[in-house]
Amino acid sequence: MPELRKDPIIKRWVIIATERSKRPNDFKKQQDQKTESVFCPFDYGNEHTTPPEIMAFRPANTEKDSPGWWVRVVSNKFPALDPNLKPEKFGHGMYDVMRGFGAHEVIIETPEHDTSMALMPEKQVQEVIWAYLERFKALENDPRIRYVLIFKNHGKEAGASLQHPHSQLIATPIIPKRVVEELEGARDYFGFKERCVFCDIVNQELLEGTRLVEENDDFVAFEPFAARFPFETWILPKKHQYNFGDIDEKEVESFASMLKRVLYRIYKALDNPPYNFMLHSGFSGIEGKNYYHWHLEIVPRLTRVAGFEWGSGFYINPVPPEHAAKYLREVSIEEE
Amino acid sequence: MPELRKDPIIKRWVIIATERSKRPNDFKKQQDQKTESVFCPFDYGNEHTTPPEIMAFRPANTEKDSPGWWVRVVSNKFPALDPNLKPEKFGHGMYDVMRGFGAHEVIIETPEHDTSMALMPEKQVQEVIWAYLERFKALENDPRIRYVLIFKNHGKEAGASLQHPHSQLIATPIIPKRVVEELEGARDYFGFKERCVFCDIVNQELLEGTRLVEENDDFVAFEPFAARFPFETWILPKKHQYNFGDIDEKEVESFASMLKRVLYRIYKALDNPPYNFMLHSGFSGIEGKNYYHWHLEIVPRLTRVAGFEWGSGFYINPVPPEHAAKYLREVSIEEE
Repeated sequence: MPELRKDPIIKRWVIIATERSKRPNDFKKQQDQKTESVFCPFDYGNEHTTPPEIMAFRPANTEKDSPGWWVRVVSNKFPALDPNLKPEKFGHGMYDVMRGFGAHEVIIETPEHDTSMALMPEKQVQEVIWAYLERFKALENDPRIRYVLIFKNHGKEAGASLQHPHSQLIATPIIPKRVVEELEGARDYFGFKERCVFCDIVNQELLEGTRLVEENDDFVAFEPFAARFPFETWILPKKHQYNFGDIDEKEVESFASMLKRVLYRIYKALDNPPYNFMLHSGFSGIEGKNYYHWHLEIVPRLTRVAGFEWGSGFYINPVPPEHAAKYLREVSIEEE
Repeated sequence: MPELRKDPIIKRWVIIATERSKRPNDFKKQQDQKTESVFCPFDYGNEHTTPPEIMAFRPANTEKDSPGWWVRVVSNKFPALDPNLKPEKFGHGMYDVMRGFGAHEVIIETPEHDTSMALMPEKQVQEVIWAYLERFKALENDPRIRYVLIFKNHGKEAGASLQHPHSQLIATPIIPKRVVEELEGARDYFGFKERCVFCDIVNQELLEGTRLVEENDDFVAFEPFAARFPFETWILPKKHQYNFGDIDEKEVESFASMLKRVLYRIYKALDNPPYNFMLHSGFSGIEGKNYYHWHLEIVPRLTRVAGFEWGSGFYINPVPPEHAAKYLREVSIEEE
């Protein structure tokens, strides 16, 4: 069973996924393997090859785990964490361990195999956002769960093992280190300025304009001032909003439109690059209503992270965010 | 000129390398490019194609920037940071910026093009360590420099752009976030236990034995309990030692022997995988003599870091460190 282990120095948790433990030979000549086979478990007709459906948007006259759906959510077939374990903590000598309790789900974004969020109709992206919201809120109600991270791996170099458009979520019994860092940083800033640091960033980006990529009534997309990666792009609600789960119907529509347009710009400017996106949000039980602000971070995977970055936590970004924003703004979007 | 920019939320610094700014086209079809050309600037006879030699171990009767050397250190031709800038800080609206002052050097480990540290004679690895020490101490005396990170990228997937064996160092005007985290974690542990956390780890690993890879008089190598990556291996001095710069001649010999043997085990078990290593050390001007302990972290690059890791700071490791240690111990080393 999977195990969570804590680094005793920097308190970083690691999931030791014993279920799918690999042998040295599994790593040899890995580069030659194709990840994409002809068979796709996410296509219509193959519903029985995935774990059973947790939810789906489908016509009332169709059956669970059968075709007809337009968004479908299932457990990951090789889950990093297991919802059937108890989130018990125990010691191992000086070390801290926790049973690998949690959830790992896959959001199949469309029945269409050969597309991507950048190319989908805006309406379909809205449906994906509705599925995110439904699962996010359901898991937020489970008192054993401390956080839900929604993310996407697009392209093999970004860690996607299947090409069919899908996102994932992992629910953890621990607030992730990266989120704790953001919460603490935002709290410090609030203590000093009595303002939300994210709101201040939104204002400065709108004022300056040089790093802006997109803007609509409710959202803004820009290259962050201290972008780690070339073409890293963040999407934030313009108004102060702590929890992703609080967005209303109009905001779902604006967010879907913004997300699709930004991903389309990245798709065009960089020729469908591999990318990850990660949604950071407030969460039931976490303090920070006044100073934390949900957002989505998109990171195209164009550069390699190497020894300096691993060893220092610094990043070297060879594209100033002002240049990246200009390239992305120059992409012309044909209105549908 | 390069610029250091600080993320206003989590206070992570990023180097925006404007000197080698790339355009979107530079990233397209990147995968098809070969990184290795026939010409190698690190081979004998090509010394004039690198920046001038900072130091070299060479016979007294040979000239600077000519063949004959056995270890040679030069500035990186495309440095991330520039020693000719002043480490001035300034504001940009709400954001913090610093001129990209620092040093970025390359340690060419051998004149031999087709080898690697795993296969070199132990004596040659000792010479490389002596070069590390000489540069580390020289830069430690520069009051503008707050930290020196020595690291190595081996193999294209680990970020190496040249195959010829080489390591690098980057000297920064800021203590890197990752090092600050280790210092703070070690200080917290010391406050609670009045012991060095690294010394405690060494003791527990020697006691348990299941994660041990190598041991000699002065050093121990093991898979850390909460390893982020499959076959991640750490090397630590057994006795409490704060600063890498304090090792004596006997310890240089033990460390070189240990490093070579561990890299050889990784080379054999995983068929010459790409890897990074990073040396973390105390440093002049940093507190922590009682509770910080220098060490080397080796991370083979066998898995892809994806959205979950970027978004959470969690890692998913599909190989329990106890299994990895066993595989590495099983490699037989022919004694020279």
